[in-house]
Order: sequence, then C-alpha cells, then structure tokens
Amino acid sequence: MSGFQVRTDLALEARESITEAESELRGVRVEEYYQEQEDIRVTKVMIDTKNAARAMGKPVGTYVTIEAPAMLEPDEDYHREISESLSRELAEMMEQDEEELSVLVVGLGNREVTADALGPQVVDNLFITRHIVKAYGSAAYNKKRMNLISSIEPGVMAKTGMETAEIIKGVVTQTKPDLLIVIDALAARSTKRLNRTIQITNTGIQPGSGVGNHRNALTQESLGVPVIAIGVPTVVDAATIVGDALERIMEAEQGFDRVKYMGQHRTAFAELNNMYMTGKDIDAVVKRVSYTVSEGINMALECQS
Amino acid sequence: MSGFQVRTDLALEARESITEAESELRGVRVEEYYQEQEDIRVTKVMIDTKNAARAMGKPVGTYVTIEAPAMLEPDEDYHREISESLSRELAEMMEQDEEELSVLVVGLGNREVTADALGPQVVDNLFITRHIVKAYGSAAYNKKRMNLISSIEPGVMAKTGMETAEIIKGVVTQTKPDLLIVIDALAARSTKRLNRTIQITNTGIQPGSGVGNHRNALTQESLGVPVIAIGVPTVVDAATIVGDALERIMEAEQGFDRVKYMGQHRTAFAELNNMYMTGKDIDAVVKRVSYTVSEGINMALECQS
Amino acid sequence: MSGFQVRTDLALEARESITEAESELRGVRVEEYYQEQEDIRVTKVMIDTKNAARAMGKPVGTYVTIEAPAMLEPDEDYHREISESLSRELAEMMEQDEEELSVLVVGLGNREVTADALGPQVVDNLFITRHIVKAYGSAAYNKKRMNLISSIEPGVMAKTGMETAEIIKGVVTQTKPDLLIVIDALAARSTKRLNRTIQITNTGIQPGSGVGNHRNALTQESLGVPVIAIGVPTVVDAATIVGDALERIMEAEQGFDRVKYMGQHRTAFAELNNMYMTGKDIDAVVKRVSYTVSEGINMALECQS
Amino acid sequence: MSGFQVRTDLALEARESITEAESELRGVRVEEYYQEQEDIRVTKVMIDTKNAARAMGKPVGTYVTIEAPAMLEPDEDYHREISESLSRELAEMMEQDEEELSVLVVGLGNREVTADALGPQVVDNLFITRHIVKAYGSAAYNKKRMNLISSIEPGVMAKTGMETAEIIKGVVTQTKPDLLIVIDALAARSTKRLNRTIQITNTGIQPGSGVGNHRNALTQESLGVPVIAIGVPTVVDAATIVGDALERIMEAEQGFDRVKYMGQHRTAFAELNNMYMTGKDIDAVVKRVSYTVSEGINMALECQS
Repeated sequence: MSGFQVRTDLALEARESITEAESELRGVRVEEYYQEQEDIRVTKVMIDTKNAARAMGKPVGTYVTIEAPAMLEPDEDYHREISESLSRELAEMMEQDEEELSVLVVGLGNREVTADALGPQVVDNLFITRHIVKAYGSAAYNKKRMNLISSIEPGVMAKTGMETAEIIKGVVTQTKPDLLIVIDALAARSTKRLNRTIQITNTGIQPGSGVGNHRNALTQESLGVPVIAIGVPTVVDAATIVGDALERIMEAEQGFDRVKYMGQHRTAFAELNNMYMTGKDIDAVVKRVSYTVSEGINMALECQS
Repeated sequence: MSGFQVRTDLALEARESITEAESELRGVRVEEYYQEQEDIRVTKVMIDTKNAARAMGKPVGTYVTIEAPAMLEPDEDYHREISESLSRELAEMMEQDEEELSVLVVGLGNREVTADALGPQVVDNLFITRHIVKAYGSAAYNKKRMNLISSIEPGVMAKTGMETAEIIKGVVTQTKPDLLIVIDALAARSTKRLNRTIQITNTGIQPGSGVGNHRNALTQESLGVPVIAIGVPTVVDAATIVGDALERIMEAEQGFDRVKYMGQHRTAFAELNNMYMTGKDIDAVVKRVSYTVSEGINMALECQS
Repeated sequence: MSGFQVRTDLALEARESITEAESELRGVRVEEYYQEQEDIRVTKVMIDTKNAARAMGKPVGTYVTIEAPAMLEPDEDYHREISESLSRELAEMMEQDEEELSVLVVGLGNREVTADALGPQVVDNLFITRHIVKAYGSAAYNKKRMNLISSIEPGVMAKTGMETAEIIKGVVTQTKPDLLIVIDALAARSTKRLNRTIQITNTGIQPGSGVGNHRNALTQESLGVPVIAIGVPTVVDAATIVGDALERIMEAEQGFDRVKYMGQHRTAFAELNNMYMTGKDIDAVVKRVSYTVSEGINMALECQS
Repeated sequence: MSGFQVRTDLALEARESITEAESELRGVRVEEYYQEQEDIRVTKVMIDTKNAARAMGKPVGTYVTIEAPAMLEPDEDYHREISESLSRELAEMMEQDEEELSVLVVGLGNREVTADALGPQVVDNLFITRHIVKAYGSAAYNKKRMNLISSIEPGVMAKTGMETAEIIKGVVTQTKPDLLIVIDALAARSTKRLNRTIQITNTGIQPGSGVGNHRNALTQESLGVPVIAIGVPTVVDAATIVGDALERIMEAEQGFDRVKYMGQHRTAFAELNNMYMTGKDIDAVVKRVSYTVSEGINMALECQS
C-alpha cells in the first residue's frame, strides 16, 4: 500500500493493509487460533523490530485481537465466553507471579459522547478492592491474597483543562500501582470490526489515536510502570470507509490508483471530515460491550486462593 | 432522476435530486428568502399535484425548510434568532385565528438512542399549560387567552408493543386537541444539512421515514385533526453518502452510470446497511438543537394578550 | 386510633394502626405465610365490606404484601426468589385461564425524580410481545400461546398537561387490553418497610396516593378492565415519622395524647411539609428493585407452552 | 450546649446552637449584611482561637454563609443575583492580586446519588481555560491576563479504591495550581436551610463531614496550597430533625432534658440511622443550584482585562 493514511487503531487492520503490498514483512510475527464453538478468533501480532514498527505505524510490542461477532448481540450473561477469552489473554500479558499486584484501571474517554464512553462505562463495573485491602487486609474477602484494584476516569481535556497524562502521572506517583490497565474506544478501518473486536496490547496508549483524540502517551516509558491497553473499536472514520468502498468498486477497473483519485477529488471528501460511521444501536451496544470487558478484567484480576 | 433510491426526509433534497434531470417540474412551486444578518435561509416547497407528489416521493402539501448553519454551534441563548424564524413559519402554517387552540405536541423517537432522541428532548422543554388552564382558566397566567398545550412521548414500538399511531389515536380521541405538532429526527442525504436544518410541513408524518423507522402514518386523514410535523436531520444514511461521494468523484469520467455501478458492486455496499454517519459531538448537538426547537414552538404557541 | 391521618399506601400498615385500638375488625380477613429459607413473609389483607373499607381508609379488595428484607441489598440475580414470590402472587390474582391475555403494563411516576422513578424503570425491563405476536403470531416465539404484553410510561401531569387517567383511558380504548397492571412508588409509614416490601392489589389505583401524588383513579370502574396495582414504598412522609418517633418516646409518659400535642405544636411540624425521608443509596436501590419487580411480572406473564 | 452531637456542616448553625447556652463566646466574631431587594443575607463567622474552634466543632478560619431563599425556585437566569453574591465573597476570600492564578476546582461527591451530586454537577459547567492558555496564551481569549482554570471530579472511594485526598494530592503535585476550590454537598441541621444556603470557607475540607462522608482532609496543611471550600446543604440528617422537632415540642414542658430523653429512647431513634430528609424535587433543585454555583465561580475567576 501507499502514502494514503491508514486510519485504524487496530494492529490487525494495519497488518492487513500492509500485506497486500509486501507479502512477507520481517520483524512481524503472527499467531492465530480459533475457538469454533464460541466463534472466537484470537490473533497475536508481535512487532519485534523498529523497522517493522515503522512499516506498521505501531510501536514494538504485542497486540492480541479477539474477534467475536456475537459480542454485538444482546446476551443474558453479557457473553461470558468472550469475557473468559479476554481474561485469559490479559492474564497472560500481565505475567502475574504469586505476589499481590496493585493495579490501576484507567477509563479514558467521555461519558457524555456515546461512541467515546467505553472507558468510563467499563470502570463503572469493576470490582474495586484497594481501599478494603488497605484497611482490613485480604482477610476481608476470605482470601489469602487479593490484588489491590483501583480505578479512575480522568475525563477529557476540554472539561478538565489538564492532559490525561498529567492526571494519571500524578495519581500513579501518589498511589504507586504495579501495573496500569487503560481502556479506550478505538477507531477501526472496517465496519465489520465495530463492537465485536477487543484489542489488548502491552505498548500502552500512543498519542493521537482513539475515538476522542484525547490521548497523549500513557506508556511504561512515560509513567514508569507497565501499561496494558484494552480497546474496542466503536466507530469507523467516514473518509476511510468511503475510500475503501471506492477502492473495492474500482478495483476491477484497469490501473485504478486510489491515491491519485483522492488527490484529484479532495473537495469531494472534505465534507466527511470529523464525521464517523456507526450503527443505530450504538448506545445500547457500548453499554453491553462495557459489561463484557469489565467482567473479563474482573476475572483476570481475581486471585484464586 | 434514476432508479437509485433517494434516502432523504427533506423535501428540499428530494427536489434537488429531481431538478438535475427535469429542470421544470409542473406542480411544484418554490419560494425562498434569505436573512443575511442571521445567515438563515428559508425555502418553501409547495407540492400541488399528485403527479408532482409522485415525482418527488413526498405527499401533496407545504414543506418549509429553515437552513441555519449556526444552529450546530453552541450559543448562550440557544440561537434565539433561529427559534424566532421557526416560530414565525410555524405560526403561519397553523393559521391560528382568535380562538384558543388546544395543541398536542408529540415527541417521536427513542430517548436512549442519541441520533433519535430529538423528539423526546424537545417535549422536555415545552411550556405545558393545558392542565392549568383547564383547572383555573387563562387567568392563572394573567392572560385573556391561553392556548392549551399538552405533550406526549409515546416511545418506540419495541418498548411499548404498540404502534405509535395507536397510542396517539387513543390520546387524541380522549383529549380532543385542535392540532397536533409532531417532532422527529430525520435522515438527510448530505452531511451539509446535519443538525442545521429544520423542516416544517403540514403533511404530517408518513410511514417508514425518520431515523428510527418507528413511524406509521400520523396525518389529518388518519387522526382527524391537522398534523404539522417538525423535523431536524441528525443522521445521513451511510450507503447514500458513499454513493454520493462516488458519483462526485466519477462524474468527470465519461459515461459513468451510478445505478449500473451500484448494481455491479452490490456486495461492496452491503456492509453499510444499518450504518449511519454523524458527527462526533452528536450527543451535545442534539441537546442544544432541541432547546432551539422547543423555544420556537413555545413562542409560536404563546398568546399575546 | 384517632383523627391523626395515617399517611401510608400500605394496607398492611393501615391495619396495624387500626388494630391497636380495635383488636377485632369485622370485614377484614388476614392470611399470612412465611418462607423461612428466603426470609419472605407474605400477608394477604382482604377487605370485604364497606364498613371495613371506611375504617381502613382503603377500598374493598385484596391486598397482598410481600416483605423481603433482602430486596434492599445488592444481589447478582436481582433476588430471583423475590421475583418468584411476586410472580406467584400476581398470577394468582390474575386468575388467568387457558386463553391468551392482552396485558397493558403502566409505569406511573417521574423518571427524573429518583424516589418516583420505580414505574418508568420497571417498564424499561419488561418482555414486550404484543407487536410481534400481532405481526407473526405466537409461532415467532416457538410457543402455542403467548400473552400480548404492551407497556406505557404516561409521564406526569406537569409535563404532559393531561391527567394520567386521560392518557390511559385513550390507550385502553384504542388497544383493548384484557388487563392492566399499574406500577407505582408508594409512601410507607415506617422506614422499616422502605424498598423491601411489594404490595399487590386488585383495587387498582386510587386518587391522591403514591409518591408523586400524580394519581387519579385507575380502576376497573373507571377504565372498564380489571386493574392490578403493584407498588413498592420508596419514601416515608417526614411529618409522619416525626409523629411516630415522638409517640414512641412519649408513650411511657402518663396520659400522653398525640393528637392534642400535634395540634398544640402545629408550627413545629410545618417545616416538614413536602419533605420526605429516605436512604442515601436510594438511586441505586430503586434501580435494583425495579429489576426484581420487572422480572416477577415477566415470569407471571410467560406462557408455559 | 450539651453532649448531644450537632450534626451540621454549617458554621452558622453550629453557632446558633452554641449561643443558646453561652451568649458571648470569645474568639468568634460575626458580621452580617442584608441585601433587601434580592433577599440575600450574608453572614461571616470568623473563628479566631483554638478555644473557639473547640467550642464550635469547626477549625479556625472564616466561614461566609449566603442565605438566599429564592435559590430553591426555578429562574430563567439561574439566579444571577445569587451567583454575583457568591462571586463577590469568593473573590474577597481569594485575595487575588494582579498575577494570573492557576486554580484547580474539585467536584467532590457522587454523580449517581442525587443528594451528593452537587460537586460533579458544578464542575460540569465551569469555564475551563488552563489547556488553552498553556497552548496559546491569554491572547486566545483576547485578554492580557487569564486565570488558568482546571477541574477534576475524583469520584468516591467505593468506586476508585483510592482516597479522594490521594488523587487530589497527586494531581496537585503534578499540575501545581496556586489555589484549590473544592465543591461539596453538605448536611444541614434545619430543613429551612436546604438548597438555599451557600457556605464559603478558607479552612478547606475536614474529614468525616459532607453528605457522602467520603471526605478526608483537603486543607492547606495537607496539600500545600490554599483550599477554599464551597458547599450547599442538600440534606438534613433524620435523627437530628426528629430530635429538634421533639425539643421544640417539649420545650414548654418544665425541666425537659433532650439528652436524657435521647438516651432513654435510643431504640426509637435507631431506625433513623442512615436516613436523610429532603424535598421531593431534589433532583431538579440540585441541577439548578449547581448552575448558580458554577456561574458564581466563573465570575470570580474571570479576569477583567
């Protein structure tokens, strides 16, 4: 592929774009497995080198994608099978040993903008333990060992006047968690991934991505603790989808060149700026998906004894 | 015009599509004026004949469109100048004489789906008087004459199990208003009309239109009282916008035929079904626009003495 | 008891007040049973005569009270055992035979006033079937027989300008249900009953009761179909509770006369007007209780084959 | 005064309780003025000595109380005259010189519990400038000088697992504001002060007060920057109000001793624990009052040139 910008937060989609042109990219490994009964596909993209990171437009690290078409649909148990899959992948990425962990979960985004409300809604349903364990010990839960779970919804800069990274940095410095888990709504390239895909990555959060573009770096480098980011795509950028539709339509044509077309017809695309595409039931879907994600995190952070 | 379906609730857009092919359509009159200082354009499309109605895909009647680009933006007074324009056009369409009117305002749509919440949010801010005037007379407001304003938010069929028309018919039969004003969110063809256009029509509500597709006929014919419908486009159908972008891009090409293309590339469009396109700030915009519309209705229904 | 007004919507409490003075009241029968494991007490007060109705301040009919202290507490299954108890008592009161029933459930109250939001929140979670059964038959649910469930949230008079009874009468006339189930938040006399008691009665709704005082008669007499009312006390009237506390404190005193005291100290009670007493977690409690009630109604209305 | 605990967050009420017993308390000065036209009474209680602080149960400092009965009522301008009064008193307490100030406004409380939602609702409507001034300078507002306003809603401990003071301390350390303004809902002793009184104090926030009891110390001593607290009483503790009513009723009795009574009738008071008393329209009132308070803060923090 070419100089046309791939607007996607999903490493999976970034890789799909690339492989059309370069069928074998060094420094990128991919593993995949499929749970047939639950119709859940898990793909791990590992970007190992800086060269590969540049080609993918994503930092070096591991990106796990859980594709579960059922997540979109209502379910009495909020798709416990998907929560379990998330829990398993998250636990593996956390590499927890026998010590108690102190984990701060950060719900990025804006509660008042439906497409951007995933983070705040996920932290609403977490099982928070830090204050109890600090006051009464893990005995309060009849356990030998309890992780100390805390959470924060930092809000968006237009409302706080502070960068999210400033707030998180302050809270991390003060409360000293061992690990951050950051939740955010993502933008996908294809409507086929909307609200049915979960991405988990150990690279943290990079500036300028996400639905709300409210993100500055939340990474191990900037905060001094490991940062795992969990995201679900809730929107597709409108200009991207029109470009994609156009390309599919034109690909039968001889010698069609998307980039040249986009340039020639720049004004025709102008009205799509700041527009996004989503389903009519997004309010209900985001609410349900947030339960599935909360529960997956709750399971991963629960101690067994 | 071609066989490709024009998905728009706006008579203004329906006419634009038509005039490309048939520059003079009998039975359709158009009047227009522009308030320069406020940047408000008012267009009246009058469909006079059944032939014209068929060509336009809209029933015989009057369609007033207020285009006010500022409506999208925040404003301390919720754009009082636009409310005044709405009030003026609505009052003219009501043709109120010196009698007190009993008016039932119906807020269609679904409060829990942002793009479809305009109707419920508008009725939240109306000045309701019927119960007071019935109990204490217009003297309660220090007026000689007061219109009797009532409102209802019937909800959507998936939640009530009843057609909106059944509920409204029952309430109309019981409370006998002189006039219905029905509010609904609309679908536009162009993103340029989103949230900055108000359509007022004396044709009532037709089946199968609107954002939620929850509408069956609410017309003078079905209810026995005049029905004025007020709508604001809050979404654009995704397939339409892709088709439009494609057409603009291709129109330089010799002999491009949209309908043929759509047919050939049907699967490429399939993923756009049930998707809509809207702005990221739609939650805030719908809230603000609903104040502008409520206030316009409040002004139109206020008695001067 | 005396001329001091008993401000309670619960027949159970009305009877308790009475029996202190008149230990055997003709025309009132009481049955009671207790489920020890679930800690659920069910009391049926049957008011059989007009004399008894006058003494109790409640119309002739059957009043079932389910007292379940656990209802107040969070529970993963929203207290399914209480839903089952409600379902059983409701089914018995409905006396459904083998015919399909068309049932309209009415959620009284005001969604925006926490203590009065029970009705609207209960109808949010009902299993609505009428529109599906009318369009596709009970086959759509793989059943031989399906009840036709519809629901409406009429809103409060200050917002609609119409009496609730006008709206319901209109909808009943138009859609002809066989039975109404009306949900409302109640006022109790004792804080010990708040949010842990469900009252079910076949007398419908009487004017001037309930939290919002938005009620006019919704009865078989006024609507032409049987009306079952389900209520949960969410508030206690402040003047009542002060009077009660006072009485308990003073009862050791010789010759204390509550009514005389109330009269002598009228101004001291004046500031309690329009005040109510409730728990700090009422927002969360009403939300949870509404799930328990919805689920009980869903169970009672489900057909077994 | 006696050993019975005065449950009030208002210094004004604490002083009223005291003066019944000790008519002249050394170390407490009181100033008062009344704006007749607006019906606004401003009282300043200055606690100057540790002895006085002990007697009052409040720390040394200045407590300004604005009593404005109209605040309870709806008003198109959200009672701009009260906002102006708040702005004046707040500006005086801030003692701002000609320098730009960096101010962090903290909205304490729980958005999901109506009586405790004042803080979060106030910060929703603040004019936030810090991020703009930091990026573009005060020129972005066409001013020579702009204060840098930021805000945070820390949430409650049950949801975050962190003490509010930990979060605020972290954010203060990171963003280094010159001043904190902390907003919280208060408990009053008398229903006559509910939702119509604003208290402003330079003592910050003391542990264990407020509606939600979610407070630990937020003071200049603990945070290293001046802390001004603004509070509005939204509830009255139920046990207090019953005790007060009882006292008024009994005071005609010879030799009535409240403390002795309370002790003798402890169980009669037990059911009032964790109950509070408030008005039925509290949801709407808190929303309106939050606008009045926000606007007062916005005015006080606005630079004139």
